[in-house]
Amino acid sequence: MENQALQKVVLADKFDQINDHWNPRIAGELNGQQVKLAKFMGPFEWHHHEHEDEFFMVVKGEFEMHLRDKVITLLPGEFLIVPRGVEHRPVAHQEAEVLMFEPASTVNTGNLEHSERTRKDLERL
Amino acid sequence: MENQALQKVVLADKFDQINDHWNPRIAGELNGQQVKLAKFMGPFEWHHHEHEDEFFMVVKGEFEMHLRDKVITLLPGEFLIVPRGVEHRPVAHQEAEVLMFEPASTVNTGNLEHSERTRKDLERL
Repeated sequence: MENQALQKVVLADKFDQINDHWNPRIAGELNGQQVKLAKFMGPFEWHHHEHEDEFFMVVKGEFEMHLRDKVITLLPGEFLIVPRGVEHRPVAHQEAEVLMFEPASTVNTGNLEHSERTRKDLERL
Repeated sequence: MENQALQKVVLADKFDQINDHWNPRIAGELNGQQVKLAKFMGPFEWHHHEHEDEFFMVVKGEFEMHLRDKVITLLPGEFLIVPRGVEHRPVAHQEAEVLMFEPASTVNTGNLEHSERTRKDLERL
């Protein structure tokens, strides 16, 4: 490992490069996990992940995580871990910048493998 | 999994409960990884982790990550992944609030297993 290759990631710069919604980019990898960045806008689809827990943290804006029995509103500086198997649906009434942390194998739409929202082969920022 | 048990984590509230330095607390767990929170102040020790990559993100304040050949200053909204095997030493000239993401097995002082700074059996916030 060349230390010279090590660089910090400035989240604001990365989000400036994102001009669409619900399309996660990879901003880092460690221990088989990925740091993903996405802009949320509008309602996403109900889905769950069979084998993976997901971490969501708001960097800018806010969004609601809808669960079957409640809604959790996430603001900047707040995070939520959605355990595997739990149905969830993010809804952003305004654009939100969100950092996610999850296994490299996680697909954004979970059990809905062929949704029009499904994104695989994610771009790296 | 009872959804009612799911709660968001407000980072500012958690950091309010931390009144010491270099003593990571567990704020969440997912996929065998832990989200840890710590306040940094002053210089830490040079160390590395044999098998684990570490993610550092500044929530408040700033600190320097010293590597053998350069120094990377991290500000709020910036993160750095230190790959396994890379010697590093965080130094905070003022108090910094830092979120870390790493395997549950990671010990803060890495190869220095018995440093006075070593913390095991971390408290959960």
